[in-house]
Amino acid sequence: MQQQMSVITLGVADLTRSKRFYVDGFGWTPVFENEEIAFYQMNGFVLGTWLKPALEADMQRGGLASPGAFALAHNVATQAAVQPLIDRLANAGGRVLRAADAPAHGGFRGYVADPDDHAWEIAWNPAWPIDAQGHVTFGN
Amino acid sequence: MQQQMSVITLGVADLTRSKRFYVDGFGWTPVFENEEIAFYQMNGFVLGTWLKPALEADMQRGGLASPGAFALAHNVATQAAVQPLIDRLANAGGRVLRAADAPAHGGFRGYVADPDDHAWEIAWNPAWPIDAQGHVTFGN
Repeated sequence: MQQQMSVITLGVADLTRSKRFYVDGFGWTPVFENEEIAFYQMNGFVLGTWLKPALEADMQRGGLASPGAFALAHNVATQAAVQPLIDRLANAGGRVLRAADAPAHGGFRGYVADPDDHAWEIAWNPAWPIDAQGHVTFGN
Repeated sequence: MQQQMSVITLGVADLTRSKRFYVDGFGWTPVFENEEIAFYQMNGFVLGTWLKPALEADMQRGGLASPGAFALAHNVATQAAVQPLIDRLANAGGRVLRAADAPAHGGFRGYVADPDDHAWEIAWNPAWPIDAQGHVTFGN
């Protein structure tokens, strides 16, 4: 079995509000959007932001809760880039959960929630290389 | 800003139980593991499964809820491969949320929850190519 994930889909309440965070905050561009979903082409997979009732209907499971027990991470190339990106995301409708500091395992990171309360860790991790296509490799 | 996600971390209650789903169910191999976390090298990013209290402490946010408002997807190469993988994941500690059927937008998919109630969609989507490295590209 390929060790592979094809899509991550986040449930959102308001696509315009969500897009402000991803487009103005991260600076990303949707590859497709309509009135209920926006897709972003990522490094080897697709990120979808879909109205939560539609995701619940597709999953045949209601009552999806927030904040969920997960975190996404976007790694940046330098320690100095961490806090400015957190600030930019906060200015685009995010909410800072943890200001950037140095964890015991090395590097530098903080957390910001998107407008639907999905957590993003913004991190500098010098042990994990990122190539020109944005592909990230585990390193010790 | 690179349109990139580096890590997705799932909060788990029991690493042995979680590993059964990912290792025996999906057939994946951790690239690193210790008593509180297991990492899997994925297609361009890293999947982490981390004890939920440790994730909450790192995020400085308690009360992470399940099921969260998100879904992960693993796409397979043929329609015939969808339901057998769902069955295999169910036999490795997962719980079927939706048996595979054909959505209005095409393809074929079902949903299974991992032992920590994180939802995986298992899908055949002929419009979205997957290359030999497992990298998935949005297609219409």
